[in-house]
This record gives sequence, structure tokens and C-alpha cells, in this order.
Amino acid sequence: MDILEIIEAKRDKKVLNREQIHYFIENYVNGVVKDYQASALLMAIYLNGMNDEEIAILTDEMQHSGDTLDLSDIPGIKVDKHSTGGVGDKVSLVLGPMIASLGAKLAKMSGRGLGHTGGTLDKLESIPGCRINLTEEEFKKQVREIGISIIGQNTELDPADKKLYALRDVTGTVASIPLIASSVMSKKLASGSDAILLDVKYGSGAFMKTLKDAKKLAQTMVNIGKSLNKDVKAEVTDMDQPLGYAVGNNLEVKEVIETLHGRGPKDLTELCLNSGSILLEQAKIFNNRKEAKEALKENIKNGKAFEKFVEFIKWQGGDISYLYNPEKFEMAKNIIPIVSNKSGIVTKIDALTIGECSMRLGGGRETLDDVIDMSAGIVLAKKIGDTVKQGDVIATLYTNKDSFDEIKERVEHAFNISKNGRIRKKEEILIE
Amino acid sequence: MDILEIIEAKRDKKVLNREQIHYFIENYVNGVVKDYQASALLMAIYLNGMNDEEIAILTDEMQHSGDTLDLSDIPGIKVDKHSTGGVGDKVSLVLGPMIASLGAKLAKMSGRGLGHTGGTLDKLESIPGCRINLTEEEFKKQVREIGISIIGQNTELDPADKKLYALRDVTGTVASIPLIASSVMSKKLASGSDAILLDVKYGSGAFMKTLKDAKKLAQTMVNIGKSLNKDVKAEVTDMDQPLGYAVGNNLEVKEVIETLHGRGPKDLTELCLNSGSILLEQAKIFNNRKEAKEALKENIKNGKAFEKFVEFIKWQGGDISYLYNPEKFEMAKNIIPIVSNKSGIVTKIDALTIGECSMRLGGGRETLDDVIDMSAGIVLAKKIGDTVKQGDVIATLYTNKDSFDEIKERVEHAFNISKNGRIRKKEEILIE
Repeated sequence: MDILEIIEAKRDKKVLNREQIHYFIENYVNGVVKDYQASALLMAIYLNGMNDEEIAILTDEMQHSGDTLDLSDIPGIKVDKHSTGGVGDKVSLVLGPMIASLGAKLAKMSGRGLGHTGGTLDKLESIPGCRINLTEEEFKKQVREIGISIIGQNTELDPADKKLYALRDVTGTVASIPLIASSVMSKKLASGSDAILLDVKYGSGAFMKTLKDAKKLAQTMVNIGKSLNKDVKAEVTDMDQPLGYAVGNNLEVKEVIETLHGRGPKDLTELCLNSGSILLEQAKIFNNRKEAKEALKENIKNGKAFEKFVEFIKWQGGDISYLYNPEKFEMAKNIIPIVSNKSGIVTKIDALTIGECSMRLGGGRETLDDVIDMSAGIVLAKKIGDTVKQGDVIATLYTNKDSFDEIKERVEHAFNISKNGRIRKKEEILIE
Repeated sequence: MDILEIIEAKRDKKVLNREQIHYFIENYVNGVVKDYQASALLMAIYLNGMNDEEIAILTDEMQHSGDTLDLSDIPGIKVDKHSTGGVGDKVSLVLGPMIASLGAKLAKMSGRGLGHTGGTLDKLESIPGCRINLTEEEFKKQVREIGISIIGQNTELDPADKKLYALRDVTGTVASIPLIASSVMSKKLASGSDAILLDVKYGSGAFMKTLKDAKKLAQTMVNIGKSLNKDVKAEVTDMDQPLGYAVGNNLEVKEVIETLHGRGPKDLTELCLNSGSILLEQAKIFNNRKEAKEALKENIKNGKAFEKFVEFIKWQGGDISYLYNPEKFEMAKNIIPIVSNKSGIVTKIDALTIGECSMRLGGGRETLDDVIDMSAGIVLAKKIGDTVKQGDVIATLYTNKDSFDEIKERVEHAFNISKNGRIRKKEEILIE
């Protein structure tokens, strides 16, 4: 076998078999297959696609391209949760403590933010002292003892994904469902959980722009789970406007704290309750989601969810005095309210623009080398469906930069405010 | 502009414009665009195609990616001729002297053989002393004074093609009409002739297996000529059986000598007369092809074509005593006749098999580093349409290797001999 016949097969719309996919992954990781050959194959996959069986094999081969994490010495069903990313998506930080407070074990490896999307690791690091680089032993011990740990990706896991992801980024082969699905799933599978809940975002602030594409990606990943005998479910949820009000690292952590106290934004709270109830059912702690949801609400009310968050951050080295006194968080030098020049109802908030503007204020990275300003970002004052009067604040910018006029204008234009706008509830579904 | 948006445009089936193609070629040659990006773009071109305008622009940009040869100080119309390659294709060596003996100026850069196809340079080098690495000045002087020179490709010409060709070879992107057409035409255009005749081969021994594909490639290259205001014509000719009888370097040169004496194989002679008459018309030496053809026949009969061949080889440093006494050419140690075990009519001779077997006998290269045995090869005794009796010799192998039983069997099986085979004349056309 050689790589040329594998490239030619996919180029000619043939179905690749296990041996061919194994050959490609093994020899790409060890350097026998060159980047220029891998990129030709990636483009052929992008354009000619892969069927479900090929995608499952690709995922399986990527999963086993390096070490895999063995969590079997932790008692119970270990769950994992992954969002395809969006603007203001702080769900893991709310949901994790919520379900752990009810006995679930969340062992999660997470990523950093890039471009308009934020990353859970950066949000955690906005809490002074909080470490995301625990050893494998520390990680497992923490999950065993308190039911939750979130750390950075272990560099020995899934080296095929690391190489392929970097290559796709510079060869125009990112937006391919087989390649996205295998990338997400191989990482999740290599990190050893028993059950996985995916949140596939769609809309202006998401990678998938349409419901149709999001459903297809979600279904593809659930099918991978079926092929590889893993309990995988996928929600498809809205990312047409930012999730919650806060966008930017410590601004979002403050919103997490509010939400765990039961005072969070409605959309964020609702999504955390839904996702949490699905995960508790996957963890077999509850027999049905309705009961699970009630229990989650109860643990917010009685403070147990917030207590679990404090315990989680304490175990990861964070200074928990910030959680009790959120006003301690560093505040940006410039706080700029944006005022509406008209009255009406908010019909749209372009999440992509909000995410990009937050990045430009210092709250995100344009390239992986950029340093984030933890206090920078945007806090919305209005969301879709809210009534606005001329002169009302619709959002506030937080930045240590001194030039922000262009951003101000862009954020203002990200809001659609109309006299008689029709607001359509975006469809949200669960694929299982 | 960056390469990513160019890759994405072609990936999304968009038409690339001059600026985009210029950016790609310039920055690929200077190393800003990486091989892995170029190969992703090549695969996108392979799968999504290019329209005639894009192909003409690509050719033009490649043509100007390095030096171009200026032949304008040679008086008259300089012609060039290119075959897409095949088995036993020694046309240039016959045709060149023929037309030069009538005043045409053939300034040709040629290539080496690889795999089952032979190369004109190797055939020339099978004549002791013959040099193919003349300087540009020597080359131009020779064309000016005697009307013909054939040399190796100048390494400064068309560097884009050199890089792209090597990359296509290892990324499964060779067999693409836009990429083949731009590769052939950019090289030909960079080498400065005024008029070009292409011979696009089709059939088992050719790169293009079907008439349809060959016509499409021929038309594409003629269209490039039209777009770039160059006189380009293309013949589409048969390569289902080897051209002539001899396959292998000095064996073919001996056949060239016979043909220039008027005793050559019918198919080879006919093709040289046809191509020669087209070139003489392109060179405006004759007003019509019929007259040109008669003049060519006359110059074979009166010996002027052969004399021009001798002059040509002498100028390139070759020992012309071999041309007068072809028995001086080195003879292979083993000469193995292959005898037919049945009677009938030859209906097929698989040219690809004959080419590969000649290579394995020592007459060709598997990789560019292999050294050729100039005396090795195969001489057919029968061609399609010939009657064979059981016990007749159908071909003879020439080799210095001592193991050839498998080759013997393969060559025997390359012949289809049947009692009542129907022989269909293959269609040959001229696109202008």
C-alpha cells in the first residue's frame, strides 16, 4: 500500500477501507506521509465526502494514534461534554458543578479560545491561581474525590488530530463534516469518558451557520458513537445571539457565579438545566430527565451547585475569595456604555460581530500566540425579544485599550432593533 | 490576498482571476506558499476543474515564472513540436531533419523517458558523443545555421512547472486536463517558438486512454494558444500499439535512420509526413499541406532528409560514423526471439506492456536516478493487421540482463492473435 493510491481512491470517490485509513493516520503521525500528501487527501475528503463507516474508522484510528486516557479506576460512569463553540458559551463552568453536586463525574479536557470564540481554559485562568495543567494523576484523583475536573488537552493524546487540525487550518479544509466530526470525537474518545454529550451550535456566531448543517454534524457524531459503542448524544442549539449577557473571560466567570446562585440569564440557565438533565440520565443517576432537572433546580436553590463550583476551583488552585466577592475581579480601565438611538424590539444580535469585537477589545486571541486581557469583553444589556427605548444602554464595552470608537460602532450595528419585528424561536433538538 | 482564500475559492467551484493565479504562481515559486497549500489547491483544481480562461492565465503565469528564451534574433518562423509521450515514439528525430531539410527552423527542448515512455534526449544520447546540454548560444546558433537543434530543458525556464510537476507526481493530481495542458504549454511557450504542433496520444500506451479525453486535452491546449496569440495546432493520434517496430534507445535510432532512408515502418513514416506537412505550413514555407508532403517525400528519396540528420548529429557532437554504419551501435548480449504459438491476425499489441517490458530489460527508467542500457529494448516483428503463422517470430527482446523469462511471457501475452479478428482503424484528427 502507498499513500498515492489512497489519495487517488478518495479523489475518484471510492470508499476507503480500514487498512487504508490506518495506513494514512499511522504514517502521517510518524512522518512517512508528508503534509503535502495529507492536504491533497483532506481536500479530496472535503470535496468527495466520507460515509458513516469511513468516518467511524477515521475517528477510531485517530483516537488510537497516541496515548488514551484510562479512567476505569474511577468508580461510576464518567461523563464528558463538548460544545462546538460560540460566543459567551460558559456552559461547562455552570453545568459541571451542577451535575457534580448530584454525584456525576465530569472528566473534561478543554480548549482555548481562538478568533471570535472563547475557550473554557481561558475563563478558568481568569480566576487568579486557577491551574489547568494538572497531571493525569491529579486530574483523576480530583474527578474521583469531588466529581469534576477540567484541564487542558494532554499533549500525548490524539497526535493525529493535532497535526491534521493544524494542517486543515492552513489548507482550506476546516469546514468539512467528516473532518470536524472525527476531530471532535477522536479527542473525546481518547480522553476516556463513558458517555458524551455534544452541543452543536448553529447560527451567526457558530461554525455551522444553518440548522441543516448543524443537524448533519450532530447526527454524524452520534453515529460515530453508535459505531464505536459509546453513549453519545448531541443537542443542536442556537448561537444566533451570544449565550447569556457576558462575553469575555472574567466577565463570564462573574455570570457563571450569578447563574449558580439562580440569578443567571434565562437562556444560559435553561440550556444548563437541559444539558445537565441529559448528562445525569447518561450517568444513570436519574431515570428520567424531568426528575433530574428538578434536582438540578433544587441544588441551585439550596446552594450545593455553587458550593461544588467553589470546591472545584479550590482543588484547581484558584483563589476562591474571588468567587465569594466577584467585585475583586480585575476591572478594565475603560467601561463604555453603548446607547440605542432608536426604540423598538431587539430582533437580532449578530453573535459573530460581538465575538470579534470582544476579541479586538483584548478579550480574545487572533492567533494562538496572543495574550488575553482577562478583564476585556462586552456585556449585553438587551437580548433578542427585549424592548428598547431610545437612550437605553444596550451593551457595555470593557477594555484596557484606548481606541475603541470603531468597535463601539460595530457593536451598535450588531443589534437589529425594529418597531414591529417578528421573533422566531430558533429550533433546538436532541439527537440520540 | 492570501493563499487560503484562493484555495477556498477553487474548493467552492469559483472561477479564479488573474490576480489570484498570479499570486499563487509567484508565491509558490518563491516559497511563501507551501507545498501543502499548493497540493490542496491542485486537488481542488483536479476535482472542480478550470475554464479555458483560467487555464490560459495559469499557463501564462507559469510561462513567465522564470526566464523565457528569446529566439527573435533567428530569422524566420521558429517551430516546435511536442508529443504527450508513448512507446516507440521517435517522431522528433525523423521529423526534425525532414522539415529542416526544407528550410524550417526547429528549436526544441525535450525531456527524458520515465516509466513505460521513452524520451528523445535518451535516444539522442545513445549515439556516442551526442550532447544534449548545449549552451543557449550554441543552441540558437545551431538553429540559425542548420535549422535544427534538440536539447534538454533549460533549468531556468518555467520553474513553476518544475515545482508543480514534482508535487503533482506525489499527490495524485497528475491526470488533470487543466494541469497537464498548462504544464505542457507553459514550457513550450517559455522556450520561445513562434508555432507549436502538439501530438496528443491516446490508447493503452498513452497517458490519455480514450479519444474523448485526448480530444479534450488537445482542444484545451489549442485554446490556450488562441488566448495567448500563439499558432498552436494539435494532432490526436493512436498509441494503442507502439509506433514503428523498435522500442529502446539505440534500437529506435536505427529505425530513425531506416525511416530517413525511406525504408521505415508505415505508421511512423505516415505520421512524420503528416506532422511535417503541418509544421511546414505553420512555418509558412508551403501554402498547403499536400505540396509540403510531396516535398518531404522527395527529400527522403533524394537523401536530403538523411543528410540533415547527419549534420544535426554532427553539430551536437555525435559520432556520425554510427549513422552510416548502424551495425556499429552496441548490441545487447542476449537476443531472444519470441515465437507465436498460434496462427491468425494480430488484433492488438498492448503498448503499455511493451513499454514496461522494454524498461525492465534495461531500456528505460523506473525512477529518474536509474541508468539506461542504450542497447536494451524490444523490436516487434508484427504489427496490428499482420498475419501470423504458428512458429513465426512476433518480437525480439534485446537485453544485457540474464533473467528475462517473465518478460518473455508478458510480451507474448501483449499480442492478441485471433482467427477472425476485426480491426478497426483508430480515428486520428487535427485540431486547429
